[in-house]
Amino acid sequence: MTVSILGAYTTKFGELWERSLTDLISEAGKAAIADAGLSKKQIDAVFVGNMLSGVLHNQEHLGALVTSVLGLGNCPAVKVEGACASGGLAVHNGYLAIQSGQYDNALVLGVEKMSDYKPEEVTYALMAAASEEEREAGLTFPGLYALLANAYFQKYQITEKQLAAVAVKNHYHATLNGKAHFKKAISIDDVLKSPGVADPLKLLDCSPISDGASALVLSRQNQPGTVTITASSVATDSLSLTGRADLTSLAATKAAARKAYQQAGVGVTEIGVMEIHDCFTIAEILAMEDLGVFAAGEAGRKIAAGLTSLTKQNKKYPVVNPSGGLKASGHPVGATGVKQVVELTNQLRSRAGKQQVDRANLALTHNVGGTGGTAAIHILQK
Amino acid sequence: MTVSILGAYTTKFGELWERSLTDLISEAGKAAIADAGLSKKQIDAVFVGNMLSGVLHNQEHLGALVTSVLGLGNCPAVKVEGACASGGLAVHNGYLAIQSGQYDNALVLGVEKMSDYKPEEVTYALMAAASEEEREAGLTFPGLYALLANAYFQKYQITEKQLAAVAVKNHYHATLNGKAHFKKAISIDDVLKSPGVADPLKLLDCSPISDGASALVLSRQNQPGTVTITASSVATDSLSLTGRADLTSLAATKAAARKAYQQAGVGVTEIGVMEIHDCFTIAEILAMEDLGVFAAGEAGRKIAAGLTSLTKQNKKYPVVNPSGGLKASGHPVGATGVKQVVELTNQLRSRAGKQQVDRANLALTHNVGGTGGTAAIHILQK
Repeated sequence: MTVSILGAYTTKFGELWERSLTDLISEAGKAAIADAGLSKKQIDAVFVGNMLSGVLHNQEHLGALVTSVLGLGNCPAVKVEGACASGGLAVHNGYLAIQSGQYDNALVLGVEKMSDYKPEEVTYALMAAASEEEREAGLTFPGLYALLANAYFQKYQITEKQLAAVAVKNHYHATLNGKAHFKKAISIDDVLKSPGVADPLKLLDCSPISDGASALVLSRQNQPGTVTITASSVATDSLSLTGRADLTSLAATKAAARKAYQQAGVGVTEIGVMEIHDCFTIAEILAMEDLGVFAAGEAGRKIAAGLTSLTKQNKKYPVVNPSGGLKASGHPVGATGVKQVVELTNQLRSRAGKQQVDRANLALTHNVGGTGGTAAIHILQK
Repeated sequence: MTVSILGAYTTKFGELWERSLTDLISEAGKAAIADAGLSKKQIDAVFVGNMLSGVLHNQEHLGALVTSVLGLGNCPAVKVEGACASGGLAVHNGYLAIQSGQYDNALVLGVEKMSDYKPEEVTYALMAAASEEEREAGLTFPGLYALLANAYFQKYQITEKQLAAVAVKNHYHATLNGKAHFKKAISIDDVLKSPGVADPLKLLDCSPISDGASALVLSRQNQPGTVTITASSVATDSLSLTGRADLTSLAATKAAARKAYQQAGVGVTEIGVMEIHDCFTIAEILAMEDLGVFAAGEAGRKIAAGLTSLTKQNKKYPVVNPSGGLKASGHPVGATGVKQVVELTNQLRSRAGKQQVDRANLALTHNVGGTGGTAAIHILQK
């Protein structure tokens, strides 16, 4: 069964001190249902993506919270969690729900409220995505991704400037996005001179701690011109980096991509626009190679040459993270995987404003949990 | 598409001090796959039900943890959460996954490790299932269910002895279950003399804090004689009791039951055996009425008369909680909804040993999150 995207909406991402978890749920949920042109009664299932509300705020049971806040009566609702891939997994479950034939219209809502907590509380809470041995070793997420960056540096010719180029590109894109967390263009020099976080990653190599909510209405209704999901795939890998054969590639991304290309019956060169999980600059480099956009060891140089930038659009490579990505548009973890699909739905509907990509034909989202313990990939088309 | 249950297994429930979360996952997952007669490679999706691992142990991302522990490679995996209904929701998502045609064989695994933490930590963590206003009011779950009990006492003629009769029945059933948390028969007097927890609920009106894991293999394979899921339904309601029109009934149970009976095309009188969410004795009384087994206000008297007991089997009413239910078999919250389906699969396969019910033709499970914020119902048949 074809799964259509009837409605798509995201709140602004950022440090939204004046907005609560329920404020964000209310704004995103209502707007996505309105965008779909449906009434609340037509929504017959809800899938919520969230990671941290339990650990940070002792609020679980978000399925029932969302139906309460939105006034959806006795509508079935489920919370889905897979660390920073929680949003992508919620989309996947919404997709399965429509395909099952049990539900006609599913609301998929990703939400995270992070900025009300002390940074050390958030750092601790985020390590819930990693393994017990990594937590016991005192690692943090920047530390874990720094290990991946160091392994990559050892294997391939790459410079810190090439890492920085990912941040520069995504910050530039975010200046065009009214809902982005950061709207400040930065230079290579700004990145290189920013404070070190976990060598070789500097402050401007890292995505921020953000608040935000994003929502989609998925449906079995299929009208001509509607954006559809042509592939929805998920893969896992060892939770801990110690279980990996190779630290210069994420096997979960590779496995999910292989399946997604097969499901959609497309090759990577046909895809004109992507939203990629760039929680750290090294993550976008790994993703570009694991998704097959560039050959292993080449992504740093190619990204630095502008080949995936809005400013140098071409027919060979996709524009990557036109929203600004996690790096600059923000990373409210449970919302991210949903927001990527919202963003590309807007691209395919030619409603992306200043961020609009010319070759918005086929689009791909890539959402990662932990250091690649989970990957969720969606391919959309119009 | 028909969804079959090929494999079913539960660990012992109880205070399993010597077993870790991963030990429980390993035992239940491997045994369910073996029971299904499948190899690990044939499992192509995993759905994990868990509520408390994040809040109590800072371990989220259980999808990838389960595939890591079981050696399932890059198999897709998702954690599903809906408070104490997390297990039932995991079964529902596994059911949708098979029905979607995307997956052939899904492992559904519910797990919870609670006894390693201080009782006040667990009490706090469980309140994550409730609303912020209920937490701020200082309520606990026994307190919330006591409010329901008091509303019921005010509306209907019922005695504390009738509440106690639920515990006595379920404790007796658990003496026949080798995997139950408690294996001690109790008397009405024992319940009435047990310490008060939240008036009118006493210690022996409450389910315990347990560890355990339960797992199922769901499949599109459908051989004659295999147990199948003929209905899988979920409903929600306001998270907070303040949002309810009526405190003597759970609207989520009623809504999910209505849909389940319709899906399966059966009436409640055709169902010979049920596993019901008796987190407190009052909860089984409400469930019996909300599921339509007894008329409103009559369940206390009918249960006390033994009409749903293994000892007085009859053709008019089902045997309820032959395992001992949450009350006596134990309540590791994320496992409970899965264990109910395991238990009734064994009943329909005539493998329930001393707990075997004569009229094991059609079976129903009922799993509740919070005070009825979520309800998940499954109907099985052979």
